[in-house]
Amino acid sequence: MHMMIEEARLSRYWSDIVHRLTPYVPGEQPALAHPVKLNTNENPYPPSPAVQAAIHDELGGTGESLRRYPDPTARKLRETVAAYHGLAVEQVFAGNGSDEVLAMAFQALLKHDRPLLFPDITYSFYPTYARLYDIDYRTVPLDDAFVIRIDNYSVPNGGIVIPNPNAPTGHALPLAEIEQIVAANPDSVVVIDEAYVDFGAQSAISLIGRYPNLLVVQTVSKSRSLAGMRVGFAFGDAALIDALVRVKDSFNSYPLDRIAQVAVTAAYTDDAWFRDSCAKVIASRERLSAGLTALGFDVVPSAANFVFARHDGYDAAALSAKLREREIFVRHFRLPRIDQHLRITIGTDAECDTLLAALHALLDGEGR
Amino acid sequence: MHMMIEEARLSRYWSDIVHRLTPYVPGEQPALAHPVKLNTNENPYPPSPAVQAAIHDELGGTGESLRRYPDPTARKLRETVAAYHGLAVEQVFAGNGSDEVLAMAFQALLKHDRPLLFPDITYSFYPTYARLYDIDYRTVPLDDAFVIRIDNYSVPNGGIVIPNPNAPTGHALPLAEIEQIVAANPDSVVVIDEAYVDFGAQSAISLIGRYPNLLVVQTVSKSRSLAGMRVGFAFGDAALIDALVRVKDSFNSYPLDRIAQVAVTAAYTDDAWFRDSCAKVIASRERLSAGLTALGFDVVPSAANFVFARHDGYDAAALSAKLREREIFVRHFRLPRIDQHLRITIGTDAECDTLLAALHALLDGEGR
Repeated sequence: MHMMIEEARLSRYWSDIVHRLTPYVPGEQPALAHPVKLNTNENPYPPSPAVQAAIHDELGGTGESLRRYPDPTARKLRETVAAYHGLAVEQVFAGNGSDEVLAMAFQALLKHDRPLLFPDITYSFYPTYARLYDIDYRTVPLDDAFVIRIDNYSVPNGGIVIPNPNAPTGHALPLAEIEQIVAANPDSVVVIDEAYVDFGAQSAISLIGRYPNLLVVQTVSKSRSLAGMRVGFAFGDAALIDALVRVKDSFNSYPLDRIAQVAVTAAYTDDAWFRDSCAKVIASRERLSAGLTALGFDVVPSAANFVFARHDGYDAAALSAKLREREIFVRHFRLPRIDQHLRITIGTDAECDTLLAALHALLDGEGR
Repeated sequence: MHMMIEEARLSRYWSDIVHRLTPYVPGEQPALAHPVKLNTNENPYPPSPAVQAAIHDELGGTGESLRRYPDPTARKLRETVAAYHGLAVEQVFAGNGSDEVLAMAFQALLKHDRPLLFPDITYSFYPTYARLYDIDYRTVPLDDAFVIRIDNYSVPNGGIVIPNPNAPTGHALPLAEIEQIVAANPDSVVVIDEAYVDFGAQSAISLIGRYPNLLVVQTVSKSRSLAGMRVGFAFGDAALIDALVRVKDSFNSYPLDRIAQVAVTAAYTDDAWFRDSCAKVIASRERLSAGLTALGFDVVPSAANFVFARHDGYDAAALSAKLREREIFVRHFRLPRIDQHLRITIGTDAECDTLLAALHALLDGEGR
């Protein structure tokens, strides 16, 4: 269909906004039997067995309940997650993945006269949302070590979005610095996007009671092994959550289906499974980082379930393509400042070993 | 949370648009063990057994696949539904319920300088979408029999949305009249919202090859008994579908989870189940319509899975409240021209009989 976009006659029916969009491109989902898939930050371990049990309960042997609409407010799910985090249910918003939650936050809370701020190297969906909602934005450069310098956010703004840990770098800010940004911007909503927080950073949820301008966004796609179920959350003051609810109820009353609601509720009841799979990923990350360093890569210290690495002797795009030939998928971004880096999701130790062996062979045989 | 909206201090962080929204209010989902639930147009029969089997296959005994993202393009689902309707896959868009699909159609295809047109009595989400996307609109009055008069749509416009059958009236236009509207408005996108088409109206999908301005929207919530799974479709020329894809990929890459994709794909493979459950609902509708008429109701002839009825001797709101006390839920809209009507979903014959018996008792004992 991409060719059709070029033909002007086909666009006469489009609203103006469609012509100005730059859609986000997610990582490839290869149609292979056994790829080594280290390109979309999925968890290498399955979700808690409680998830499958809850889905079976919901189906009840006939699937009868599926004829009924789900709870439009996802009340039980929100109550469960609120209790887990020590929040009130009115401080919790649930959406169809943290991408939908972020989209609604951009529309409901981040469109103001002053520009929105986010890092120059960050989740590449942010500028896409900004264009979708016609939000003026400025990017704030990371320093040369890919670190967010919080002083750079003390300029007039209409909102701030910062992932912690940042993506695709994996670098995390300490909670004290997150709090400084939130406190320094009392007139703006500060969104902390914590998609990867469970792999080694500190959540800002503990700050919510003190800062009515703080919105924390999380997802079950990474640390809860439920990318396939599409559920994300926003946590914050009830007035911020209410804005998201009003946008959601003007867009789609029922974004979370019955299965997603029970599956994710169940996931939050099995904390041991969650902690164990996070610990395994963290251990594999340290092992992979050491292996990559031994091969001559510069690896950004990561608090996420991926590492961001470059090798001075080899072109990143070429290396990614060579790995792909071996059915090993990593993510390469053709973007300024990072086009010589690879973002590598933490797999099982066996998958990481396959990657390291392939890199060893490639670096030996095919320098630039 | 609704009280908070009144307090101005809580809204300082909201984007301007949030203040102007009028969120849609879906029908109540009562937390009762065995309500007679005839208020949200759900199907009284369960989905095909193929649905549950497909979900079990996807879970595979461990739920392992849920750790992976779903196909962002829902390719297999779209191919299945395209083949079912004799379309190309590029003519099919899949979204999180037809509500999400409609929202994206409003944003991508219906925002132009001239006003959008839709009936004055229709799906009450349309004006909500228009406000969300700041779309100028005009409502076109139904005639006194609640019939859409197609000549009234031959005025300058930036788009047209018509449900067929219309909701909440249940009245359907013949395909020839739908074609006249589409043909008379070659410069506008005409959206035919066919949420209820399988219960007795003719689909406009057969016109798609001849009219590049036609978009047909359908859902699995009603005739496929899958309201709980949240999947809807748009069918139309590839250029229209491409506009929806561009908006979707600027909003949320993965709106359909893995379970929803396999469940709905399976539903389209069991046509016998689908036809049988539609036939049962249609038979019950005729039976209920006769029963209501015998009780003195005026019943709008319905081609949907609900009837729209009024009784000259009894106030509709009061009747709805009295039914609610008996745990029988029907839908009443406090809107101009229809505040004396009830919209009653077709249940099983047993549920319809419970309703008729309750109405008989109420009308006997408590006239206005």
